[in-house]
Amino acid sequence: MKSHTEYLWFETRQREEFVCITGQVEQAVSASGVLEGFVLVSAMHITAAVYVNDLEYGLIEDIKEWLQGLAPKKDYRHHATGEDNGEAHLKNLILHHQVVLPITKGRLDLGPWQQVFYAEFDGQRRKRVVLKVLGE
Amino acid sequence: MKSHTEYLWFETRQREEFVCITGQVEQAVSASGVLEGFVLVSAMHITAAVYVNDLEYGLIEDIKEWLQGLAPKKDYRHHATGEDNGEAHLKNLILHHQVVLPITKGRLDLGPWQQVFYAEFDGQRRKRVVLKVLGE
Amino acid sequence: MKSHTEYLWFETRQREEFVCITGQVEQAVSASGVLEGFVLVSAMHITAAVYVNDLEYGLIEDIKEWLQGLAPKKDYRHHATGEDNGEAHLKNLILHHQVVLPITKGRLDLGPWQQVFYAEFDGQRRKRVVLKVLGE
Repeated sequence: MKSHTEYLWFETRQREEFVCITGQVEQAVSASGVLEGFVLVSAMHITAAVYVNDLEYGLIEDIKEWLQGLAPKKDYRHHATGEDNGEAHLKNLILHHQVVLPITKGRLDLGPWQQVFYAEFDGQRRKRVVLKVLGE
Repeated sequence: MKSHTEYLWFETRQREEFVCITGQVEQAVSASGVLEGFVLVSAMHITAAVYVNDLEYGLIEDIKEWLQGLAPKKDYRHHATGEDNGEAHLKNLILHHQVVLPITKGRLDLGPWQQVFYAEFDGQRRKRVVLKVLGE
Repeated sequence: MKSHTEYLWFETRQREEFVCITGQVEQAVSASGVLEGFVLVSAMHITAAVYVNDLEYGLIEDIKEWLQGLAPKKDYRHHATGEDNGEAHLKNLILHHQVVLPITKGRLDLGPWQQVFYAEFDGQRRKRVVLKVLGE
């Protein structure tokens, strides 16, 4: 059994920004030497998500607008702590903070349109994603 | 360590259709010979989901109607590409495209009412789910 | 390769109650002896979720109220079976019933604010979560 761990760092320019990280995940899989296994891609923050969907910029804007509707900016109880990012927590919960991707014959075993995204909802500071590969 | 990979193919008759696949996942687990481990069940498409919940037809209709409310059919930016399935992408994001199921003593270790579903949101064509078993 | 399985039992006093279980997951990881791997934390029920977010009580109330808005109590088709918990199934689907946490050097490899929660939506009876550790 082999395991391999990497951390990706992000510091987005916008408070809300989606970054395609498929290439970086592929590189970690190659570096691991794992031929058959899983790679966990997991945000280490509670105001950022990781998801798999299309690399199409219209759709990415659709997703942002849709999330805005489901988790609007407003005066959350959480803001009594001094924070102003209640909606970012809720967006993290809708999209989920992680995915597990299959590795087959040493490659990410994704469908033709599947791309991996880091979705930042409270950026403009350094944040991390952990990549952990497990397999043989 | 053992690994085992299978692909399930679907071509639903309806554009939107939910298919219970617990039996097929059980079969893949048996075929793998894994006694203790995980099976990843992951849609290879960006307009289909995999989820665990009840095999009760009223509830399945409730889920479809509820998703319709949260991600209505409308004119998404994504449709500028010629697609008409913006809402299918959003439904995929709510339900999530994958689950990881525990295997204990060679069997899926699910609760009494837990069933695994493939949720198609843009069907009537051939689509796939990857099953990957990892363990010992 | 090592594997380790534990079950956590819950019987919440409220119908809806969120319980922080990070400490119990840490203990299972220690007991497993796994240094590098994954731990799957998965509700064995269709009306309870497992999620990772902040241990801040204002935010926990925000999440409950927000879920109430997205999946209101109402007369679902599912209630024709005699059940009255349709909304609990939908809340389970939004938050997802499971997470996979990375283990690095024998510890949960979480970000500074990440805590693991069991979210009960139809409690006041005995229910379970499975913890399965896999790694080396």
